[in-house]
Amino acid sequence: MSHFVLECVSCAVQSQPDLTTLQCAKCAAPVAVRYIDWNPASPGVQPPRWDAPPIPLPIANADSYVSLGEGNTPVIETPTIGRYLGLDALFAKLEFMNPSGSFKDRGTAVMLSVVQEMGAPEIVEDSSGNAGASVSAYSARSGIKAHIFAPASAPAAKIGQIRVYGALPHPIEGTRDQTTEAAETYYRERGLVYASHNRSPYFIEGTKTFAYEVYRRFEGTMPRHIVMPVGNGSLYIGAWKGFQELRAAGHGFDIPRLHCVQAEAVQPIVAAFEGRDWSPLAGVTTAAGGIAVGKPPHLGEIVSIIQKSGGSAVAVPDSAIIEWQKRLALSEGIFGEPTSAAAYAGLQQLAAMGVIEPGESVLVPVTGFGLKDALPV
Amino acid sequence: MSHFVLECVSCAVQSQPDLTTLQCAKCAAPVAVRYIDWNPASPGVQPPRWDAPPIPLPIANADSYVSLGEGNTPVIETPTIGRYLGLDALFAKLEFMNPSGSFKDRGTAVMLSVVQEMGAPEIVEDSSGNAGASVSAYSARSGIKAHIFAPASAPAAKIGQIRVYGALPHPIEGTRDQTTEAAETYYRERGLVYASHNRSPYFIEGTKTFAYEVYRRFEGTMPRHIVMPVGNGSLYIGAWKGFQELRAAGHGFDIPRLHCVQAEAVQPIVAAFEGRDWSPLAGVTTAAGGIAVGKPPHLGEIVSIIQKSGGSAVAVPDSAIIEWQKRLALSEGIFGEPTSAAAYAGLQQLAAMGVIEPGESVLVPVTGFGLKDALPV
Repeated sequence: MSHFVLECVSCAVQSQPDLTTLQCAKCAAPVAVRYIDWNPASPGVQPPRWDAPPIPLPIANADSYVSLGEGNTPVIETPTIGRYLGLDALFAKLEFMNPSGSFKDRGTAVMLSVVQEMGAPEIVEDSSGNAGASVSAYSARSGIKAHIFAPASAPAAKIGQIRVYGALPHPIEGTRDQTTEAAETYYRERGLVYASHNRSPYFIEGTKTFAYEVYRRFEGTMPRHIVMPVGNGSLYIGAWKGFQELRAAGHGFDIPRLHCVQAEAVQPIVAAFEGRDWSPLAGVTTAAGGIAVGKPPHLGEIVSIIQKSGGSAVAVPDSAIIEWQKRLALSEGIFGEPTSAAAYAGLQQLAAMGVIEPGESVLVPVTGFGLKDALPV
Repeated sequence: MSHFVLECVSCAVQSQPDLTTLQCAKCAAPVAVRYIDWNPASPGVQPPRWDAPPIPLPIANADSYVSLGEGNTPVIETPTIGRYLGLDALFAKLEFMNPSGSFKDRGTAVMLSVVQEMGAPEIVEDSSGNAGASVSAYSARSGIKAHIFAPASAPAAKIGQIRVYGALPHPIEGTRDQTTEAAETYYRERGLVYASHNRSPYFIEGTKTFAYEVYRRFEGTMPRHIVMPVGNGSLYIGAWKGFQELRAAGHGFDIPRLHCVQAEAVQPIVAAFEGRDWSPLAGVTTAAGGIAVGKPPHLGEIVSIIQKSGGSAVAVPDSAIIEWQKRLALSEGIFGEPTSAAAYAGLQQLAAMGVIEPGESVLVPVTGFGLKDALPV
């Protein structure tokens, strides 16, 4: 018996953990990890370099842990932008300071640890770039062969990074969603494991470490708001799960209001939150490639978290994304990729709308390194 | 009175700290920071997020500290490469996980803090790229105008990164050394501060934090050897200074043997260590741009540290550098730049020579992110 099961996020049907269950057999909703009798006093395998608070993880043996030193990213203040937006306390958590240059490494470390523990020699992933690079790095580390499907339009540096780690890139012409379809066909036809950062329940178990670190850093003075770029929502869902677990373990704090930012060109979550119809338009895309996801599998969960956390969802134009990428570098010395800059464009909107007020503290994760994308001009 | 003075590394003449003294007025050797009556019980300003052991720093007020979350980089084992080289314990310290993507951020954070504290609004730096990007980022952060001189042949991503942070790149045709000459002419003619990572005594005060972190991580089980790529030697000299300070503060441990690796094409340190004549050949360069320094100002100090620490210096061909860059990514999932890979080519040579023996533990800093350079092909 494992110390956890997989559970449908919608109808709560449970199944034994494996590498192939990506959705509920009954209702087709995503599945999530649920721990059985987890006890903070004997928390089991913990991430390397981690002290406290304890984190439940779906890994049985510490030897299976595939780590490249992910996590423990710094939080710094960004006072110049804070003043510009009329905010008293604005913090950035520098998630690009991860081994492959994005927050995805948190999720990949745990997902690949489970893949290694359960024994799959070959995996398939699809990604606009960051998750692909991340899965490639951790696959190299653990000797697993990785097929990475990415849009042919992804930045050359991201595809190049996949190749450097020795993974096999499969560039796909068409939209981000067509890339996913190609990956799904490929893994099904060949009977391979689909280690998808969008679909695997283990990925979220890694991204939730973000919440534990935010809590460890702020404790009683938690930021009132966290503003994130959201595409598939793996960091967003992970953060919520982490905060929920911390509360369940007896830590007393107010969970921050979790806000989603999307690009105007690709805004299924904003539309769903506002109760509008929305579907991807062929050929319409955004500089924020990391959130150009037309059909996020976890859409229902994300909207539910927005509501439960008192968050909101806003869409921002590409002009604002590029402007904020430059502003972040020029005024704070932080070089994030366009997807990361989208969060600041959204923050500006939320402050202008009065959703975020001057005296309230705000945290923004800077999710990916600017070097991974085309330079802003 | 400041809590430190500047002291000539050769004849020990002392002077009051300022931003203009880069060499001894008497003998023209480099100057270094020397602390007066420093006491670990009241260590003064410490880096953000740092707990222990205390570090003497040339910063008087914590408010002057310019930090982007540098340092506290992870140490991971690299077992596949270790086995390949017949080494039992091989560790990598991932210095590319710094805010601008290289170890240079350690030195820049302290140097720019001093610049800010002493009040200079405009600075000049010259760099093959990494230090330029780093100084640009920290200058943006602190509202200081930065002129960055770099070889016109530096990778586009590095020059682009300088521009993104709002610094003014000055591309110079010619060698790395001609870039330095152009920067020196520029700062002298305009009466600006030369915030040079090669010349400023404050830069080393930041890079020495590397040694403190290595000690905190290993304590009684310090690695027997540290193998570094060395160009100007700022990390090398900083590591030595940090270890010396730790010993002086009463921490008992054996200082690792500090080995220098250079490229065959540019090897002034290896030649000086071996007592050979060497001078830069026009047009001869290396893929390891970070160590392509024909005339390192601290040459004498570096050779002295090699001798005192029981280290050595080896030169490696570019073919081995590129091969190791690929191997590091393929077998460990670590994407370092060519300069970083040079250390592994050197390590292989040192192991083959018997300087490093199978049972001994070795640490290699992976100094810069592979994304900052052209992709290996």
